[in-house]
Amino acid sequence: MSRLARVGITLGDPGGIGPEIVLKALAQGGSLPPAEYILYGSARVLDREAKALGLSPDIRARAAKPSDEPGLFLEDIGPGPEGDVRGRPDAVNGAASFRAFETAVAQARAGHLEAVITGPISKTSWSLAGVKARGHTEYLETFYPEAIMCFWSSALRVALFSHHIPLREALGRVRKDGLEAFLRRLDQALRKLEPGRFELLVAGLNPHAGEGGLMGKEEEIEVEPAIRAARAAGVPAAGPFPPDTVFRQVLGRPDRVAVALYHDQGLIAFKLAAFETGVNLTLGLPFVRTSPAHGTAFDIAGRGTADPRSMLEAIRLAAR
Amino acid sequence: MSRLARVGITLGDPGGIGPEIVLKALAQGGSLPPAEYILYGSARVLDREAKALGLSPDIRARAAKPSDEPGLFLEDIGPGPEGDVRGRPDAVNGAASFRAFETAVAQARAGHLEAVITGPISKTSWSLAGVKARGHTEYLETFYPEAIMCFWSSALRVALFSHHIPLREALGRVRKDGLEAFLRRLDQALRKLEPGRFELLVAGLNPHAGEGGLMGKEEEIEVEPAIRAARAAGVPAAGPFPPDTVFRQVLGRPDRVAVALYHDQGLIAFKLAAFETGVNLTLGLPFVRTSPAHGTAFDIAGRGTADPRSMLEAIRLAAR
Repeated sequence: MSRLARVGITLGDPGGIGPEIVLKALAQGGSLPPAEYILYGSARVLDREAKALGLSPDIRARAAKPSDEPGLFLEDIGPGPEGDVRGRPDAVNGAASFRAFETAVAQARAGHLEAVITGPISKTSWSLAGVKARGHTEYLETFYPEAIMCFWSSALRVALFSHHIPLREALGRVRKDGLEAFLRRLDQALRKLEPGRFELLVAGLNPHAGEGGLMGKEEEIEVEPAIRAARAAGVPAAGPFPPDTVFRQVLGRPDRVAVALYHDQGLIAFKLAAFETGVNLTLGLPFVRTSPAHGTAFDIAGRGTADPRSMLEAIRLAAR
Repeated sequence: MSRLARVGITLGDPGGIGPEIVLKALAQGGSLPPAEYILYGSARVLDREAKALGLSPDIRARAAKPSDEPGLFLEDIGPGPEGDVRGRPDAVNGAASFRAFETAVAQARAGHLEAVITGPISKTSWSLAGVKARGHTEYLETFYPEAIMCFWSSALRVALFSHHIPLREALGRVRKDGLEAFLRRLDQALRKLEPGRFELLVAGLNPHAGEGGLMGKEEEIEVEPAIRAARAAGVPAAGPFPPDTVFRQVLGRPDRVAVALYHDQGLIAFKLAAFETGVNLTLGLPFVRTSPAHGTAFDIAGRGTADPRSMLEAIRLAAR
């Protein structure tokens, strides 16, 4: 008999809505599959948040050895002053959220976790804390350079060719060889999810996908040749399509994934079409990694009003 | 007693869905206000289209002098071979759709039309026909350099700081002085629509609006100073906001207009949130100009399946 699945959940930035939505999602998650759910964060922050929300979750301390019992466990990365600052970026909180994430990833890399769900962190907090990685995906990329950031929901699926870099830099990355390799890796990773299922619809870079070269040449010089080469290698890719309509071609088509050439191209579409239940999914890793598609929401931190649906979907997708 | 309003409607590219949606919209438009609706296009194309759709519109030839009678009139820009090619860009069609538009604009500039609604043209057809302007708005900009391209619906309103230029070029245009002047012009034009109504929410350029400089400096160096200067001049502008969430802040808020820094930033959002009934609105002209938010839809031209709702909304908004 195979052992119980172990699923790590990091609380995210202690000054944001991460701890709140994790507790709410678990409280509402009666239908989650039985597993060892292990929280990574500070016991102090978790207690404060549970009291504020009027919740009494049954959380056990993490045993040195896997307990192989379904339930909720805590890997306490405290104690420290994390969580004293709320509603804005903070170095102490950045260090704490990074430590939690680093610990979960190390355990996943060692084969002790089958999945990691990450609560929202602040990239500014990480930067203030001297963390070199700009975000979760960038840190994972240091171990798995072929990691791919995707946004996933029943309505829309988007893979990002580039993500947390200035737009000017993202434009420079749109080159035939890199894009062809990306399409091949994405196709391989998607085949592991479900063989033969997904067609890739690639967005252009310029308005109207360049409209025959009138509004930019990158489509002709870089994007089209990359798609042709990927197709020749058996990747079911098509495009480039006008960026302002390609996402509509993927909407409601569970057999299609849109490929966005830069962060906002994909995220503007995804957050309009699937904000509440959208999940960030990292492909190309030996373990599953998901997270809610939203951020720390500093503006509503500590108010108890945060919507846990995206976090719950992230846990569900990972646990499945 | 003031004379009857005169509203020009161009048929757009004869090889696209323009003639079809104009006829369908007018057939369904029983509730349009009484006006002199003047079509600009080829009688031959119009006849063919009406027969294919089984419609018998009562269209009178345009009299030399305004008739001051409500109804439907035609300013025949034919005869010619336009419309023989369908479903793809074509020089003859480009020349015809440009001639129709040019004629309508000349009459509007001379004060003979209060509003112009433009059917969708193909920028490639125009280019094949040797037309220098890339599109309707660019042509209007030759007379009215301060024209502003907006997309308008009850759900969402977006103004574009730049539009039909390569993305790389659009990035270079994001400068403090130009953006400040744009915000001031936009505010002035919106005050003519409805004084004191609209707040401007300006998008950033980079992911997360640069996240404090971590992912790009344009927000700090150009966008924030432009907004501050515009505010100091009394313009109700705010931002820069993360591009992937600013449109959600405007959705369902009829008192807000989003300012997009480049074409696809605004259009990806608009086409997802308001595709069917969205209207392209040009501000900053002495007459009203609207058009459907979609294009020629060459892929479905001649099938009779095109959706006229956006065209009907364009006529309604202009006639109002």
